[in-house]
Amino acid sequence: MEEQPIRITSKENPWIKRAVRLKEKKYRDREQSFWIEGERASGELLKHLASVRVFFVQEDHWAIWKERIPCAYWKKTYLIPEKLASHISATETFSGIGAIAWMPHWRNEEIFPKRGTLLYLDHVQDPGNIGTMIRTAHAFALDGILLSPECGDPFNPKVVRSAMGMLLNFPVLTQITDEDLKKASDQYGYQIIGATLKNGSIIHYCHHYTEPQIIVIGSEAFGISDKIDEICHNYVKIPISFNSESLNAAVACGIILSEINRQQNEKF
Amino acid sequence: MEEQPIRITSKENPWIKRAVRLKEKKYRDREQSFWIEGERASGELLKHLASVRVFFVQEDHWAIWKERIPCAYWKKTYLIPEKLASHISATETFSGIGAIAWMPHWRNEEIFPKRGTLLYLDHVQDPGNIGTMIRTAHAFALDGILLSPECGDPFNPKVVRSAMGMLLNFPVLTQITDEDLKKASDQYGYQIIGATLKNGSIIHYCHHYTEPQIIVIGSEAFGISDKIDEICHNYVKIPISFNSESLNAAVACGIILSEINRQQNEKF
Repeated sequence: MEEQPIRITSKENPWIKRAVRLKEKKYRDREQSFWIEGERASGELLKHLASVRVFFVQEDHWAIWKERIPCAYWKKTYLIPEKLASHISATETFSGIGAIAWMPHWRNEEIFPKRGTLLYLDHVQDPGNIGTMIRTAHAFALDGILLSPECGDPFNPKVVRSAMGMLLNFPVLTQITDEDLKKASDQYGYQIIGATLKNGSIIHYCHHYTEPQIIVIGSEAFGISDKIDEICHNYVKIPISFNSESLNAAVACGIILSEINRQQNEKF
Repeated sequence: MEEQPIRITSKENPWIKRAVRLKEKKYRDREQSFWIEGERASGELLKHLASVRVFFVQEDHWAIWKERIPCAYWKKTYLIPEKLASHISATETFSGIGAIAWMPHWRNEEIFPKRGTLLYLDHVQDPGNIGTMIRTAHAFALDGILLSPECGDPFNPKVVRSAMGMLLNFPVLTQITDEDLKKASDQYGYQIIGATLKNGSIIHYCHHYTEPQIIVIGSEAFGISDKIDEICHNYVKIPISFNSESLNAAVACGIILSEINRQQNEKF
């Protein structure tokens, strides 16, 4: 008879309790793990099996996932009834699969010496925006994304969802201060470029982007903070209609990264 | 003695009941009104006072809003205690002001003859994405945004929030079918340009954008639908890293609209 994953039915099961608790930052930090759910993000996890702690598959979805999860991982897979699925889900509708993954660890010394393009988020709080910017930075093949100490937690379930699982293999460094940026700039020659509508900023596509460079995106409500503003070498802005206040931070970020990409490709 | 807005304390007050019910589409359609909240969106409403049905100001925020709401509108303003504020809010934390506004009405015949740039959303459901694209289309001074019948409701509170109140003065046409697009194209010469990664699509910044044109963004999960795909004249794609699946729809939209803007400005 074919071996099947174990079926869990109790909310008191330690893995179920862990899955629920991982919605809170203090448990994520303690366990060095985070919660992933949804087809695309979990599909991404299948490419990084070393990160898997456990999979949870809603039992009526097992026929699909049994083809995708390698059988060596079935012992790390639990089947759960629909009721338990809604209990552990961070969304309104659980889409059949969730997982607990180990947090990846990246060291500053792995990222800064690459001298390519990095993105720095200064006081960005909105989890949807943080996740979308991780996804965008990954899509444009940046070397990584740096978060200021005041940013939202990148392992928040909403960030993980918007990032579409890209957190698993894309370098995200947290707690990066103005001093860290200054040091990186002095040591490796990074240009620090602030995206801001302030006077003196030049139109983003008129700027000539050259690596190594760090693109700074400020908070939606307050823009770039004074400390970071002080260490920027250049400022770029996206020209918008006079009666429009601003763009969404993740959209602005995408526009600038796409322009860098265009300039790099036009060289050839 | 200075006149003050009326204070409401009961959940049974008809305006409070209306504010709560407007979270549902059928009431919005019946009342031809929608719910707005937050400082920025409500600030936008102050520029379009004819759209105001009522303002709700949390009483401890009145000192601020009394300077901004013209006193002729105080009779349309209600002061509410914190408890009632959380009752009517569509968010976790009410930021002091909310309002009921009349839905703007736009007719196809006002928009299509402009022969500029329009954005068409095909089966886009995510309210955050729809709102962000409205805000972006407004920022790049498009003539309007067209929604397919399967799109999410533009007056959903989450759309209104992401659009930052831009719904009040920016043309949004709903229930636009493939036949409407075809007709607009035949009658006014619109080029229909699909954003898609499919074979045969050209790199977006290599396309020469010329008005009149309609940019089509498909659903995040399924891309552009077959019916719409059939009537596209051209396809553009944003080049991304080979191991990345796609960009967020609102980010992709921003990148294309920004490129159109760049090409238009480089002409001068």
